[in-house]
Amino acid sequence: MTDAENTDRQTVSHTFRVRYAETDAMGIAHHGSYVDWMEMGRTEFMRAFGFTYRQLEEMGVLLPVLEINVRYKAAAVYDDELRITTWVEELTRVRVKLAYKIERTSDNLLLTEAYSLHTFAGPDGRPIRITHHPEAWEKMQRMAPPEILRSGE
Amino acid sequence: MTDAENTDRQTVSHTFRVRYAETDAMGIAHHGSYVDWMEMGRTEFMRAFGFTYRQLEEMGVLLPVLEINVRYKAAAVYDDELRITTWVEELTRVRVKLAYKIERTSDNLLLTEAYSLHTFAGPDGRPIRITHHPEAWEKMQRMAPPEILRSGE
Amino acid sequence: MTDAENTDRQTVSHTFRVRYAETDAMGIAHHGSYVDWMEMGRTEFMRAFGFTYRQLEEMGVLLPVLEINVRYKAAAVYDDELRITTWVEELTRVRVKLAYKIERTSDNLLLTEAYSLHTFAGPDGRPIRITHHPEAWEKMQRMAPPEILRSGE
Amino acid sequence: MTDAENTDRQTVSHTFRVRYAETDAMGIAHHGSYVDWMEMGRTEFMRAFGFTYRQLEEMGVLLPVLEINVRYKAAAVYDDELRITTWVEELTRVRVKLAYKIERTSDNLLLTEAYSLHTFAGPDGRPIRITHHPEAWEKMQRMAPPEILRSGE
Repeated sequence: MTDAENTDRQTVSHTFRVRYAETDAMGIAHHGSYVDWMEMGRTEFMRAFGFTYRQLEEMGVLLPVLEINVRYKAAAVYDDELRITTWVEELTRVRVKLAYKIERTSDNLLLTEAYSLHTFAGPDGRPIRITHHPEAWEKMQRMAPPEILRSGE
Repeated sequence: MTDAENTDRQTVSHTFRVRYAETDAMGIAHHGSYVDWMEMGRTEFMRAFGFTYRQLEEMGVLLPVLEINVRYKAAAVYDDELRITTWVEELTRVRVKLAYKIERTSDNLLLTEAYSLHTFAGPDGRPIRITHHPEAWEKMQRMAPPEILRSGE
Repeated sequence: MTDAENTDRQTVSHTFRVRYAETDAMGIAHHGSYVDWMEMGRTEFMRAFGFTYRQLEEMGVLLPVLEINVRYKAAAVYDDELRITTWVEELTRVRVKLAYKIERTSDNLLLTEAYSLHTFAGPDGRPIRITHHPEAWEKMQRMAPPEILRSGE
Repeated sequence: MTDAENTDRQTVSHTFRVRYAETDAMGIAHHGSYVDWMEMGRTEFMRAFGFTYRQLEEMGVLLPVLEINVRYKAAAVYDDELRITTWVEELTRVRVKLAYKIERTSDNLLLTEAYSLHTFAGPDGRPIRITHHPEAWEKMQRMAPPEILRSGE
């Protein structure tokens, strides 16, 4: 279930359940699972804007990860229904920073706050300027409110 | 640690430890983790014969999985040292079947018996005859004792 | 999305998308990912019958895996929407066998056929007779059409 | 293979190979795999000091993750041999911060720099002061050079 919210900060929420395979011997969702959920979050974020990451890859633009940061506030357990909310925090010609929060839907408890920083790269993994792909650049800009578009690098 | 045993049934053993990420909320190694360990087992099996799967891929030969079967006898927990032993159970021009057993090293308890069946495929994923790659075929044959080489198919 | 179909063979279907983390360097969904999807399939199968696996665990009944078998017919790629259909193939007082098929929703292409065999166990992992938990047994029986209920072991 | 280096900054290195299951459709090790490797790094770090995380758990002390940060410099591919080096960057009575670097062994190329921040918790997941477990506290202190032991909190 995905729900786009077109306010100033354009966020997209997606709900899902914790799989058994995603838990660990502490009885909770393994902290590494959140990294895969962030990836799912950005997939659904782009889809909500009518421009999928798969299309981006087919245009020859990859989004390799430069950095991730995840802060864990509370734990989830197997079968919990969670909601990941994704938004663009920074967009330049050479990179994009996405932010995420993950909440438990039953009581809106905040579990995690996170971000991921990505560079734009060609099929060979080398950095490119997204402005060299005008169609992709135009679409990426729609995902980011004007005030966070930075002209610099 | 890898240890090749050159008896009639040529087996290769590799030891490793259960990672925390590989456990689940039952407090044991998740049953899906064994599938990744089988893959590691066949990587080390080929390396012990001086012919890595990476080299095989670079020659344009892939080994996509047709079938896996895993029978679970006993459970492993976090940080257990396990030993996976791998051997070829069947080799034809179009496919190879590998068998595995996974044991706990501390007491040789048998945890799992498994097999995986693979076809030979080109970079596009389409089936090929391994005999069209004489170097690869020659090397694969060394991994399998004569009595299991089947002429058919 | 889950869709229960109450015909003779009671099946439950659940759709989901292939995550990037679930792909491998062959460019396709890793064969191990299907094992996690089967687990998700049985979670949704039970939920459709109003009796979740989480409830079963809270009653002190676990379903450790005795065996899995997966046959791969065709590959999936990142972001493909897939449908897993789950049903009970065998139910006795000491074990249950679930069967699965995974298809690509866009063209109903069959990707995988699989089964998993489970024993009933207590919190300590030891086998139990499900009939000692009348409520659980009554609910499990509803998931299985009469002709597959076997009285024996 | 683990190699403890007892200099001022006490580091422990552990080598391992990238598994096929750890790669993704970009043809490289998935960025989430590094999180599991960090966990393996801290397991081997503690083992090198003769005090395993499993023993710590058996004493009733867990190390849930408060935060992770991973900065990706270069990519690894299937079967690359990597080395993870782990050390303690901060140790107080209520938390410990571990730092990591991951390098490719063939040419010492730095792939990743990372840290993880952990709280000390009881079996119920609630924060505890590690000083209430004198044996564990004494052993943790040996892992950290004196200058990074902070009295605060």
